[in-house]
Amino acid sequence: MAYKSDIEIAREANKKPILEIGAKLGIASEDLLPYGHDKAKVSQNFINSVQDRENGKLILVTAINPTPAGEGKTTTTVGLGDGLNRIGKKAMICIREASLGPNFGMKGGAAGGGYAQIVPMEEMNLHFTGDFHAITSAHSLLSAMIDNHIYWGNEQDIDTRRVAWRRVVDMNDRALRQITCSLGGVSNGFPREAGFDITVASEVMAILCLANDLKDLEKRLGDIIVAYRRDKSPVYCRDIKAEGAMTVLLKDAMQPNLVQTLENNPAFVHGGPFANIAHGCNSVIATKTALKVADYVVTEAGFGADLGAEKFMNIKCRKAGIAPSAVVIVATVRAMKMNGGVAKADLGAENTAAVKKGCANLGRHIENVKSFGVPVVVAINHFVTDTEAEIQEVKDYCATHGVEAVLSRHWELGSEGSEELARKVVALADSGVGIFAPIYPDEMPLFEKIETIAKRIYRADEVLADSKIRGQLKEWEAAGYGNLPVCMAKTQYSFSTDPNLRGAPTGHSVPVREVRLSAGAGFIVVVCGEIMTMPGLPKKPAAETIRLNDAGQIEGLF
Amino acid sequence: MAYKSDIEIAREANKKPILEIGAKLGIASEDLLPYGHDKAKVSQNFINSVQDRENGKLILVTAINPTPAGEGKTTTTVGLGDGLNRIGKKAMICIREASLGPNFGMKGGAAGGGYAQIVPMEEMNLHFTGDFHAITSAHSLLSAMIDNHIYWGNEQDIDTRRVAWRRVVDMNDRALRQITCSLGGVSNGFPREAGFDITVASEVMAILCLANDLKDLEKRLGDIIVAYRRDKSPVYCRDIKAEGAMTVLLKDAMQPNLVQTLENNPAFVHGGPFANIAHGCNSVIATKTALKVADYVVTEAGFGADLGAEKFMNIKCRKAGIAPSAVVIVATVRAMKMNGGVAKADLGAENTAAVKKGCANLGRHIENVKSFGVPVVVAINHFVTDTEAEIQEVKDYCATHGVEAVLSRHWELGSEGSEELARKVVALADSGVGIFAPIYPDEMPLFEKIETIAKRIYRADEVLADSKIRGQLKEWEAAGYGNLPVCMAKTQYSFSTDPNLRGAPTGHSVPVREVRLSAGAGFIVVVCGEIMTMPGLPKKPAAETIRLNDAGQIEGLF
Repeated sequence: MAYKSDIEIAREANKKPILEIGAKLGIASEDLLPYGHDKAKVSQNFINSVQDRENGKLILVTAINPTPAGEGKTTTTVGLGDGLNRIGKKAMICIREASLGPNFGMKGGAAGGGYAQIVPMEEMNLHFTGDFHAITSAHSLLSAMIDNHIYWGNEQDIDTRRVAWRRVVDMNDRALRQITCSLGGVSNGFPREAGFDITVASEVMAILCLANDLKDLEKRLGDIIVAYRRDKSPVYCRDIKAEGAMTVLLKDAMQPNLVQTLENNPAFVHGGPFANIAHGCNSVIATKTALKVADYVVTEAGFGADLGAEKFMNIKCRKAGIAPSAVVIVATVRAMKMNGGVAKADLGAENTAAVKKGCANLGRHIENVKSFGVPVVVAINHFVTDTEAEIQEVKDYCATHGVEAVLSRHWELGSEGSEELARKVVALADSGVGIFAPIYPDEMPLFEKIETIAKRIYRADEVLADSKIRGQLKEWEAAGYGNLPVCMAKTQYSFSTDPNLRGAPTGHSVPVREVRLSAGAGFIVVVCGEIMTMPGLPKKPAAETIRLNDAGQIEGLF
Repeated sequence: MAYKSDIEIAREANKKPILEIGAKLGIASEDLLPYGHDKAKVSQNFINSVQDRENGKLILVTAINPTPAGEGKTTTTVGLGDGLNRIGKKAMICIREASLGPNFGMKGGAAGGGYAQIVPMEEMNLHFTGDFHAITSAHSLLSAMIDNHIYWGNEQDIDTRRVAWRRVVDMNDRALRQITCSLGGVSNGFPREAGFDITVASEVMAILCLANDLKDLEKRLGDIIVAYRRDKSPVYCRDIKAEGAMTVLLKDAMQPNLVQTLENNPAFVHGGPFANIAHGCNSVIATKTALKVADYVVTEAGFGADLGAEKFMNIKCRKAGIAPSAVVIVATVRAMKMNGGVAKADLGAENTAAVKKGCANLGRHIENVKSFGVPVVVAINHFVTDTEAEIQEVKDYCATHGVEAVLSRHWELGSEGSEELARKVVALADSGVGIFAPIYPDEMPLFEKIETIAKRIYRADEVLADSKIRGQLKEWEAAGYGNLPVCMAKTQYSFSTDPNLRGAPTGHSVPVREVRLSAGAGFIVVVCGEIMTMPGLPKKPAAETIRLNDAGQIEGLF
């Protein structure tokens, strides 16, 4: 049996005018700023007007550690959103925006897959509503103003060896990772080392996604540490007087983007911070607004639950004052098999023993998520090659953890395939059993916060950090940053810092290579392993075959 | 008497929904892609559907050499457009988009002024419909692909000392003018010198503005020379296989942006190439589409008529196969006085002698424009301090050149003030006396083209160019580029290459410092003097005071 590709299905979508989708949520047309006929931004006036409403229930979709088999976290998020609508609930979806640059290396991605997708897919992989361009602009303005400040006399006494603010571009351009700038003589400034990251790694992105409103955005932008003086005291963005103009550049980017699923259900797609050096969730303003206009809001977090769900709960929920009413952990039979030791080429053959073995990874995620005080359901995202016996193996395993595993066939059938999952999620969310709390308090010392995550979530024996790193954390505590949450940057492929260690490893150590203060975003980044903040293009970049065909359709992007 | 500022007037604008403005032009709502409620892009389907229509008449608005007194070229363009509508003509306006970066140095500019403006002014100074961001992205993709090509083995044998393609960013960032990139070791590539220009200086911008359609755009992008091999043969963009993906990134940016004047008349604001290293006009696709939907299309060209009108006619009209039916030269009494030797501080006092003396500059522009075979009218853009006697002086002078000078008070009165100008323009355009032709043929040798412009337009005695430059031009002729037009890059403040030489200088020389081949745009840039392609920020950048106030309005941008 031949299946249609995601892009084929997306192109056949029977989209409704976005103003109609907005009307479903009670958003009037004057409160929607259209971008074409299928995308719109929600006005700040509208957002202000709904602040007194009760919140709907928040459902987090997370997953096991990703494997090359694919888990379908976004697909399940979309499928669940459609399923909730199908069973008569007023539900919407909140997910992240895609970065432009990587599409020209590897092929771009759908938002979801099969019959559980958000559209318009092509625009979402290209400029969309321009949010990331606005972030690049705001970031670039600060970059230019810092060097301009140094150029015109350096009143703030910035140590040009200690400029912490790198530049960004939304393109995979390894040649810009490390540069020397301000060459060419007097009129170009003082030569110094600098470099570029990709836009999604910008602290401006993280800030936009955590800010409650434009005032909060401006305040946080002002808090960014851009450099240090010779006496090592920090120079803030507000010392350079850039935060006001940056806020002006970001004023539209702050507004959530409304789009729709293939089944014409509403979705906010807004913001997209890195899931390693940042918290990897869509914007707080989108989630909070969704909670005001829908009874159930389905959202997701980056990577597996060890990174994504942990940060969602310890950073985003803590800071935004929201709490999930239920958590869905996505697993697939194929991914269980890979965690059980099967090679990708052999995934087609039934292997219940491998499934059972691989479930250890899932089991630990279940325990971890439960430790935040929220009820859990496992969604088995169905693949057509899954056998009954394999599926039963996952269900039986979950039962031993006191959790139900529901087979969901949204990829193949849309909401018809996710009805059961939707009913289960509603039951859990409405049960009121959730007593959500972050797993460490604000006032815990920074190093202990790292240890808490490493031991309780990663199940490591110890955290390794040299005296320089420990000293840095102490310094930040003394400077008043001790109450910030920590943002772990480690491999997404394992509970440990070794990407090859699948399953549920124990007895490992978590080495901290570096710590960084994101004072504007409001977290301490803890770097455990190699973190790439500017990807490169492969030898044969996808861009080489991307083009418009004679019908005006984009080829090669998917 | 106190006058309102441009931004105050713009904020009071009684804008109509952009779909209504489109309807006036016969563009159905499904052919308009809205960006908010006051901006829209015109679909390619619509553009295709009107190709068999007769063209309307094209009116070029140009000016004397700019002085610090201000001439109001765009203001007059807008005022004339409104005036034509007022007298019952189906007229529209085509102007350029503004660059983002410079707004953070000096204050941003209105599109027009007083009661002759195009709105929404704030968006037009910020992200607008994202065209320039798309151009930055397309340019950046090619940049990344070039270094990526070198990184992965350099099959094209690019001489890394001869990479001609610089990077761009839409920000005034002098620190990026000259850099060393690809530092940091093996995984970051081969270190080489590089640098950034501002986005409006990108050849992609010039190409977008000269391309007839997306096919033509892709072909021209492929023609860009990005580097040279060790044997000095050119490496084209198509050798790097970037033109298809760049076209995909530019597909929406290619569509003209529809906005409106304060009087709700339609305007396309689209494209914005530099007026020195490029041709300085709005896009061909906007102008050509306007000619299909309006009976009169008012457009403008950058700088004074010596640069702007010359390039409009020798480059844009030649390549696009269009011709102006009439040309309006904008002058002001104040600018005449400055050309006549009066200092800016003394402009308030009546000085008919200085006006008369300064008219020499205007007179030469009249002669030059007439030499293209098009009828001319002078618009005296009225300032409230102008005296009757001074105005009469300009009128009398123009009469001696066989040209009428019409006082126009659109700044103060809107279309009520530009009725007379509109009637005069219609009479000229409808007279059929125009026999437009570029002033040099395609087949003229390149150096002779430069001499033709220098002698016939600038009235220089000679062009100075060393043998290296002459040899380079010969090489390009041998390589098949001899039929391209030349694009002069010189100061806009004088007919000569000395910015301080006002009036109508003679006996000067035009030294050619450098020539550049823009093979994709399709012209040879002739650099006469210092050309800055990456501006810096001033000591107190406007950005320092730009912010959102509590009412959500932008302060400090204007």
